[in-house]
Amino acid sequence: MRLHVAFLPHLVWPGRQVSIVIDVIRASTSLITLVDRGASRILIASDVPTARALAAQYDGAVLAGEEEGVAPPGFEYGNSPVELSRATVTDRPVLFVTTNGTAAIRAAEEYGPVLVGALRNSAAVTSEARKMVAEEQSDLTIVCAGREGAFGIDDAYTAGCLASRLMDHRWTLTDSTEAALRLFRSEPDPLALFRVSAAGQNVIRLGLAPDVEYCAEIDRSRSVPRLGRELAIVE
Amino acid sequence: MRLHVAFLPHLVWPGRQVSIVIDVIRASTSLITLVDRGASRILIASDVPTARALAAQYDGAVLAGEEEGVAPPGFEYGNSPVELSRATVTDRPVLFVTTNGTAAIRAAEEYGPVLVGALRNSAAVTSEARKMVAEEQSDLTIVCAGREGAFGIDDAYTAGCLASRLMDHRWTLTDSTEAALRLFRSEPDPLALFRVSAAGQNVIRLGLAPDVEYCAEIDRSRSVPRLGRELAIVE
Repeated sequence: MRLHVAFLPHLVWPGRQVSIVIDVIRASTSLITLVDRGASRILIASDVPTARALAAQYDGAVLAGEEEGVAPPGFEYGNSPVELSRATVTDRPVLFVTTNGTAAIRAAEEYGPVLVGALRNSAAVTSEARKMVAEEQSDLTIVCAGREGAFGIDDAYTAGCLASRLMDHRWTLTDSTEAALRLFRSEPDPLALFRVSAAGQNVIRLGLAPDVEYCAEIDRSRSVPRLGRELAIVE
Repeated sequence: MRLHVAFLPHLVWPGRQVSIVIDVIRASTSLITLVDRGASRILIASDVPTARALAAQYDGAVLAGEEEGVAPPGFEYGNSPVELSRATVTDRPVLFVTTNGTAAIRAAEEYGPVLVGALRNSAAVTSEARKMVAEEQSDLTIVCAGREGAFGIDDAYTAGCLASRLMDHRWTLTDSTEAALRLFRSEPDPLALFRVSAAGQNVIRLGLAPDVEYCAEIDRSRSVPRLGRELAIVE
């Protein structure tokens, strides 16, 4: 069985596989937080107009997501996991906008189950993924969303963290998995690395440094959003 | 000025820049070796039929390159740098086939000067690149060829080595440059890493382990192949 890290969505290799999608700063961390808060139905849209158009169809829906880093007009929440950690979403559908996250899920969905991962749920998501791989006897791919088609060190580091938790003798590692593992081992302090990442710098520029700290916390959640369970893509 | 590592050719960002192209196992190491051996005119083709068709036009041309790792019928040499280190190429044009290497050069050529790098010429190529960047006041990109569209840890490691030699306070580093630097620093023994890389494994399977050793040697050459000087792409 192969353990692969796709540093960008289009680097997913075809074939039956379980996938863990990562957009650690901030979409996948936000999705995990929404499940923590009791969201049982999260509808992911790749852009703001799609989410707005659908809001009318979903009575009482919570609109969350970002446009240039902040909540678009008419949205109840941005893509700030710290803000979402105080959100009231129980029994309401959530319409969540993430461009990079949607692309990563889209790249993986045709090949098998898709889970959402981040540092906050690293133990939980790898535990669920391990069970699924055992059932399916399939390969596993950790899919990094990246930033508008560019490599993101925050996602690659998180992929390395997840890969280190999954490691055992049964896996065949690809070059990118080996590189992600070495990246993870190069830095004991995730926050130090996240702060200098392009994604982290962008969030800090928006005045949302506490979001970066929140995204860098390890194993604070047992929530594992799964496509077809809590999550669906809408368009 | 930005110091960027493109982990694959299509991840080069547009804009004026000096590029160093890496396909360390084995094409860029072979090109450096050909210049070591006195080749003053190397014509790069992306496939064997192109090289064969052109051989008639270039009287006395040396044909070198690989098809599934070995010299195609009618070729004088394969893509083995160890073999090429004993080749007689002075005053003869060399037709050299490299699929991944050609794609990497193609991705970079429209944006500025293109140099060929590997561990064997790391000091020489970074010294020449530094001078060019100073003259042009431009960005610098290290372009990894990868393997048929997949990330190659051997190229990324070599990019990290070159980036570490280029480092000073003037550069803005991208996420991928930071990751390549950390990968390079994670392993003091290039051969240990090259041996487990997919490219290295492939060469070892062909019975050419000494090629991997040769590619892993640092600073044995002052040769810097440059597009428009020793090198041209033909098609």
